[in-house]
Amino acid sequence: MCGITGYVGPRPGVRTVIEMLRRLEYRGYDSAGVAVASEGDVQIVKAAGKLAVLESQLQDHWETHGASIAHTRWATHGGPTTPNAHPHFSHDGKIALIHNGIIENYQELRAELLAEGFVFASETDTEVMVHLVDRAFRKLGGMEAAIREALTLVTGAYSIAVCASHEPETLYCAKTASPLILGLGEGENFLASDIPAVMRYTRRVVVLEDGDFAKLTPEGVTLTSLTGAAIHREPFQVTWDEQTAEKGGFPHFMLKEIHEQPRALADTLRGRLTESDRVFIPELDGFTKEQLAGFTHIHIVACGTAYHAGMVAKRFFENLLRRPVEVSVASEFRYADPLVSPQTLCFIISQSGETADTLAALREAKRLGATIVSVVNVVGSSIARESHACVYTQAGPEICVASTKAYVTQLMVLYLIGLHLAAVEERLTDEAHADFVRDLVALPDAVESVIGNALLVEDLAAQLADRSVFFYLGRGYDFAVALEAALKLKEISYLHAEAYAAGELKHGPLALIEPGVIVVCLATQPAVFEKMLSNIKEVAARGGTVVGVVYEGEHRLDSSTDHLLRIPQVRPELAPIVSIVPMQLLAYLIAKQRGCEIDMPRNLAKSVTVE
Amino acid sequence: MCGITGYVGPRPGVRTVIEMLRRLEYRGYDSAGVAVASEGDVQIVKAAGKLAVLESQLQDHWETHGASIAHTRWATHGGPTTPNAHPHFSHDGKIALIHNGIIENYQELRAELLAEGFVFASETDTEVMVHLVDRAFRKLGGMEAAIREALTLVTGAYSIAVCASHEPETLYCAKTASPLILGLGEGENFLASDIPAVMRYTRRVVVLEDGDFAKLTPEGVTLTSLTGAAIHREPFQVTWDEQTAEKGGFPHFMLKEIHEQPRALADTLRGRLTESDRVFIPELDGFTKEQLAGFTHIHIVACGTAYHAGMVAKRFFENLLRRPVEVSVASEFRYADPLVSPQTLCFIISQSGETADTLAALREAKRLGATIVSVVNVVGSSIARESHACVYTQAGPEICVASTKAYVTQLMVLYLIGLHLAAVEERLTDEAHADFVRDLVALPDAVESVIGNALLVEDLAAQLADRSVFFYLGRGYDFAVALEAALKLKEISYLHAEAYAAGELKHGPLALIEPGVIVVCLATQPAVFEKMLSNIKEVAARGGTVVGVVYEGEHRLDSSTDHLLRIPQVRPELAPIVSIVPMQLLAYLIAKQRGCEIDMPRNLAKSVTVE
Repeated sequence: MCGITGYVGPRPGVRTVIEMLRRLEYRGYDSAGVAVASEGDVQIVKAAGKLAVLESQLQDHWETHGASIAHTRWATHGGPTTPNAHPHFSHDGKIALIHNGIIENYQELRAELLAEGFVFASETDTEVMVHLVDRAFRKLGGMEAAIREALTLVTGAYSIAVCASHEPETLYCAKTASPLILGLGEGENFLASDIPAVMRYTRRVVVLEDGDFAKLTPEGVTLTSLTGAAIHREPFQVTWDEQTAEKGGFPHFMLKEIHEQPRALADTLRGRLTESDRVFIPELDGFTKEQLAGFTHIHIVACGTAYHAGMVAKRFFENLLRRPVEVSVASEFRYADPLVSPQTLCFIISQSGETADTLAALREAKRLGATIVSVVNVVGSSIARESHACVYTQAGPEICVASTKAYVTQLMVLYLIGLHLAAVEERLTDEAHADFVRDLVALPDAVESVIGNALLVEDLAAQLADRSVFFYLGRGYDFAVALEAALKLKEISYLHAEAYAAGELKHGPLALIEPGVIVVCLATQPAVFEKMLSNIKEVAARGGTVVGVVYEGEHRLDSSTDHLLRIPQVRPELAPIVSIVPMQLLAYLIAKQRGCEIDMPRNLAKSVTVE
Repeated sequence: MCGITGYVGPRPGVRTVIEMLRRLEYRGYDSAGVAVASEGDVQIVKAAGKLAVLESQLQDHWETHGASIAHTRWATHGGPTTPNAHPHFSHDGKIALIHNGIIENYQELRAELLAEGFVFASETDTEVMVHLVDRAFRKLGGMEAAIREALTLVTGAYSIAVCASHEPETLYCAKTASPLILGLGEGENFLASDIPAVMRYTRRVVVLEDGDFAKLTPEGVTLTSLTGAAIHREPFQVTWDEQTAEKGGFPHFMLKEIHEQPRALADTLRGRLTESDRVFIPELDGFTKEQLAGFTHIHIVACGTAYHAGMVAKRFFENLLRRPVEVSVASEFRYADPLVSPQTLCFIISQSGETADTLAALREAKRLGATIVSVVNVVGSSIARESHACVYTQAGPEICVASTKAYVTQLMVLYLIGLHLAAVEERLTDEAHADFVRDLVALPDAVESVIGNALLVEDLAAQLADRSVFFYLGRGYDFAVALEAALKLKEISYLHAEAYAAGELKHGPLALIEPGVIVVCLATQPAVFEKMLSNIKEVAARGGTVVGVVYEGEHRLDSSTDHLLRIPQVRPELAPIVSIVPMQLLAYLIAKQRGCEIDMPRNLAKSVTVE
């Protein structure tokens, strides 16, 4: 969750690690800090709040040379205060350490260290680690040995990086769970929790695996296991375009990413359709027809927005394949003693490919013998690497914490997979299959047309921005979209937005409907349109303000709703890809009206790499 | 949803039907009205609001004789206004009609009648019906023929009752879906939408079936089909105690019903355990072991609170039986083209046994060949009658709209059924089975002990009553309880209360946590206790007020929470029956502090008999 950067080499250390950190700002954080080692001591500056606050305190340090580390923190143990910010340091100020993840036995270790006379400056779990290193250093007299000894004492899932005045031109780092990469330069080396941090300095990157320990000097990198055995990992060349991670003229990454959706959807289709309008997913080529048709259970596991994509897929797969599909929240799945066996085909969905609960769920399903197919955006991420097959979403880097283009491309991949499985099981005629494919191909234009009407949404947002309570209602596919739409508004505007299956309205939430409450009603599903109309009338009769979401040309809601948002008519199963777009725009525009931060909402992080 | 009463006989008609209606007040309503027929005209009085408002306008009518009907309305088409209240009447004022349910083609019929010159006094679907009867009467010259003709023109799911000055000593009624019963007296007869309405006058009751048409005079009742064929339905004797439906000294039915839970749980166990501590469910005797073990799929369908009971059962059944169990909201299930077959065992849960969506789901599952076992509280209700087997919850009449004792007894029945199925499949040793049964037997005392500590909850409620935002978090079984706990608070206090699987916190809702927000954290499940502790720290670090729900003797949350509610230690699977009780009390006491109506929350009805 936290951002980590480190540098050894001839450049000014502080400036370099802060610049690197800025490339990770999108991960979300609540405090930041930096340390630079020199002969004699380590200088540390840290501050609660955004990077700008820290930078205003760095005038005297900006050009300092020496091994440097920096950190953006997302609070887990202890509030987002300056003392709790990283780096943490030894009592003598000679060792500094940053950390991402959770040290599970920190309470016992803290008690032990307190009893030995160590003084704690923070409430964090991290600080025990630096005191352990300090204690071991005084016993053993070498930084590498000290860090290795400290690592044997802690349990948990984390990555760390350390610099010390004892070796002012050396960095150490270790990874047991949270992501960590090395950037290899000429006469300089880098470490970071994510690749964008190093891209402007080097394109040669080593992705560390769990249990890796690295020593970095300007001249080179030594890679060993935690216990000291030599390890070789092949560096790879990053070919991404740095520009794609910029805002490209939009005021926020979120709006940029909403606008990128037609392109992202088209990219996701690219190479996965044949000229005869059939779905072809090269990533699933490793499975025989018999294997794919032989799974008795399908289980989809994900968190947050990806879980909402899973809900759409459940319905789509069940209706198409006539086989039961279960969809689970990853944090629930892991501990549910799940019914997974070698006959289970398990779909794992995660934008980052590093979502901690989702990754743990993947491992649990794998342990139980399931075949894992993941749907991931970040190439080479842990989930992608550990799956039997991974179908990438091709959304490109998603910077805004609130997911938009990753979500619609997850849906696109899931529709493609559903059609692929249906083809394997011969459940569709060639004609029906090709019809469906043509409808998929039409989706980018449909989304483009919704984005083209954003001005209408802007009007509505201006009228709704001062309201404080929102409900989102839908039935069937529309219910899954309602959940995702409510989450979008919650994430970036901090408003109370709750989604309900519209039929459940009378079983409780109707009590909360009164004048002033906004009720967004999705009505894209013909089979339940009349039922939605009844629900809308019930809401209107109690004074709620109704915003309807319907197809162009649909006028049966005109007299029952206060506002209407229209989307192009598409196949009802595919409506989720289109109907979410005005919902994303509405959430964005309301948040903008309210002056919210949008791209980095408080308390949230882009990639939830701790549980 | 609406309450219907009717009377013919020597008593003052208006007084009698209003007194009957009072017995149905608990069903929830927003307006009321009454009509009494005499030679020459029908007198009608109606009013928005509670019955007392109507009664204040009845001084001149109180002792009027003649066939009478009365109605409490729960708005579906048109707001809760006086013109929209029932009865509706013909233009000449000679025919009055009341109605429960929905007339689906009312818009077409209204247009047709308007074109013919009929004038409408309301926005309701009901009013078309009385004009249709009026038109038919002028053509045919007889009330019975006129009503029959009108019924042929409408589509939908409804019950109606009619009185007219043309036959001032006769009532007519018809049922196509919503419940309707007749009470048979001596020289007088009654009709009502539910049995309690007639209990103080007669205990001889006929439950009408869909498609029944009845003519009531003081001398007798004639029962026919809608098309006029004679029908015989055996009356049955109601043996309930009228007292059990009174508040028994408590300020609200809800508190009375919370206090009845130990008794209700014990009653539910009664007759279902053998002396050797084994589960024995006589209602399932009709199934062979082979039948019960032979179902490949288990599907649970319910709405609202009963759906939350189903979520607990899903987890319990899956862990015990190692077979996949799906749980669906009834309004979603109906239209999902569900994967149900003759190999499906379908559990249908409904307190009233009349929940419209649940009943429709039952019929859909039955049509697809599933075996239906229902869990119902109201004996003889539609769902009970239409199931292959029904296991009653023995909660007794539940009057408060917000369900309490029905919920815990649903859980108890589901635990019993789970154990029964496990025994059939020989999945538990005799000893493990008996251990489990002894833990079930201990539950009423555990619930009693929580109720005994209600004063502690009262203190907490006093401190929280002015807060406006509540989150409820839990993992596993605790998540299902969190959903039910949030629903309780929503229903009766109209506060924004949202439940989340605690692991999903970081995927969105954490953005909403700030000082002033109450976060109720259930932590009764040992396997995920540490994970809950982490979530609690995340909430506390952002200034949320944490209310923990833990076992007695558990002190690991003491320093991380602002308030603690304790429950006796029970087997973790059974915690939902106990942990919901302080949540019910908290919701009740907060609503009471806030001066809410509690037993009859605005906009809600006890039994949702329209979709």
